[in-house]
Amino acid sequence: MMNRVAGESGSYQDLVIRFAPDLAAVEAAIADNLFSSNELTEAIAAHVVKSGGKRLRPLLVILSSRLSGYTGNDHLVLGNVVEYLHAATLLHDDVLDDASLRRGSPSANRVWGNHLAVLGGDFLYTTAFDLLLSSAPREIIRVLCRCSLDMIDGEVLQRRWRNRPDISEETYLAVVARKTASLISGCCRTGALLAGADASRVEALGRFGSSLGTAFQVIDDTLDYLADPARLGKAIGGDLRQGTVTLPLIHLLRREGLAAEQSRIRGLIERGEVDDTGTAEIAALLREHRCGESAMARAREFAADARLAIEPLRGTELHSALTAAADFVINRDL
Amino acid sequence: MMNRVAGESGSYQDLVIRFAPDLAAVEAAIADNLFSSNELTEAIAAHVVKSGGKRLRPLLVILSSRLSGYTGNDHLVLGNVVEYLHAATLLHDDVLDDASLRRGSPSANRVWGNHLAVLGGDFLYTTAFDLLLSSAPREIIRVLCRCSLDMIDGEVLQRRWRNRPDISEETYLAVVARKTASLISGCCRTGALLAGADASRVEALGRFGSSLGTAFQVIDDTLDYLADPARLGKAIGGDLRQGTVTLPLIHLLRREGLAAEQSRIRGLIERGEVDDTGTAEIAALLREHRCGESAMARAREFAADARLAIEPLRGTELHSALTAAADFVINRDL
Repeated sequence: MMNRVAGESGSYQDLVIRFAPDLAAVEAAIADNLFSSNELTEAIAAHVVKSGGKRLRPLLVILSSRLSGYTGNDHLVLGNVVEYLHAATLLHDDVLDDASLRRGSPSANRVWGNHLAVLGGDFLYTTAFDLLLSSAPREIIRVLCRCSLDMIDGEVLQRRWRNRPDISEETYLAVVARKTASLISGCCRTGALLAGADASRVEALGRFGSSLGTAFQVIDDTLDYLADPARLGKAIGGDLRQGTVTLPLIHLLRREGLAAEQSRIRGLIERGEVDDTGTAEIAALLREHRCGESAMARAREFAADARLAIEPLRGTELHSALTAAADFVINRDL
Repeated sequence: MMNRVAGESGSYQDLVIRFAPDLAAVEAAIADNLFSSNELTEAIAAHVVKSGGKRLRPLLVILSSRLSGYTGNDHLVLGNVVEYLHAATLLHDDVLDDASLRRGSPSANRVWGNHLAVLGGDFLYTTAFDLLLSSAPREIIRVLCRCSLDMIDGEVLQRRWRNRPDISEETYLAVVARKTASLISGCCRTGALLAGADASRVEALGRFGSSLGTAFQVIDDTLDYLADPARLGKAIGGDLRQGTVTLPLIHLLRREGLAAEQSRIRGLIERGEVDDTGTAEIAALLREHRCGESAMARAREFAADARLAIEPLRGTELHSALTAAADFVINRDL
């Protein structure tokens, strides 16, 4: 899903090239720190952690620390840790959703069973904190601990609104804030904290990450309906099949003049009866009424908020780098 | 399950009375710190945490800290935290085992579903570390983080030996060391660390807890076959129905002159076909061949090791208190 952005020739690629040594070191740490006395735990964890992903979180840690003047090596551990925390939530989510595909491969719960997927997630969470305890300042550990609590809260909140077509955009955004934006914000904040940045920079980066993370998730949720399944790496409409109503559908359910279609869709969702046919029908309506576009417009507003948050840093390398990262997130393939 | 020990008139009860204010404060903290932005998370966690249990772990923290001269209040947080860590593993175990009863009440996964039981466990783990980060020295947090990793390893190891009647006593004890003894040892060690005890006392208490924890689990596993189901609070033979072969059965499978019975039992276990009839048959054989007694004898050896570990403390209040705690563990109703 990494694509160059027309008109900003390769700025995200430039970042990846410039910080290739750090990214490679994080990647090595991600693999090396999976060691346990138990080959099964390693295998499960490796399944999720080594299967790719965009590594957006480690990159944000690297940019926020190094471009704030950090010259040590603890940002590599931090980059590793945020990816473990993220992967742990994916493992548990797959169990909870009974998912069968993750990033185009069979999900861990399908390969090893729920038991080992739950324990694999526990292992990643705990190893993440074990790594932090050996190197990070307490303030950083606390920030990431709070991010973990937010992610759990977000999952519970999402579950509470399962099969409920009456979910508002506000509630949806509250889920996104906890489930996704909190950790992405935490990556930016902890990177800055590691560099000993002043409070105003830490705060600005935190707001940047929070808005960027929201944009990121809204786009993800939109792609879940509208992307090419082969490129998405999983079946289309997966969120809805789980009863999770996301922004494009929230927009569709509030469009004027669609009472009959909306009533039918509401019924399907409330009864948990969204199958392949229902998903195809809803995806067609979303296309017809351009709800993907309206959700993407909302995502772009959050991306604009992200840019606004780092306006005080304009003229710095960090500003350029984060802007490039934001452009990359917002311009992923639709 | 709390009973007085003949000949040591009420010594465990004396401890409970003497430390009643601390135990009550821990109990209050256990309830108060469940606060989250989300009532469901609280409900799940409360279900496990408030449903009782022996509170052996908090008591060991209290004894190890206060009777090593600690005069502050952070031992109360520590007592709270070890109970959260323990409860988190119970929640995840119930999901993994698809258990329907826990401490005589419906288990959390039956009441709220696997989804919220997994997240409830995650919430307790993470809240435990969040609490530690606000008060405990880093060394203590690291010890408890390692205990959590041990507990996860123990679960994975146990799972690997599921439905395998060829498990040795040595492997069984390796599971117990990680799954149960590690945290009980951690309670004793961190209590002493909090009091600033010297390394030799910390080490002695750690060995005490490790042996006591092993004795505790062996007794638990024996009660699983031989206790009165009404007093046990769950169905008999529950471990075996999950394919987990514990010490009494390991002993039965190694007795001389029972080749026919052993072959039949091995087949049932390997095929995962242990039902009510099979459980009753195995429980009868265990009784006939006194395998409960031989497992209990092994538990008493570990309890003796525990007492030996604290022999250097003889003459101190801490020695008397821990001896009483060990006597209580070993003399639970069979």
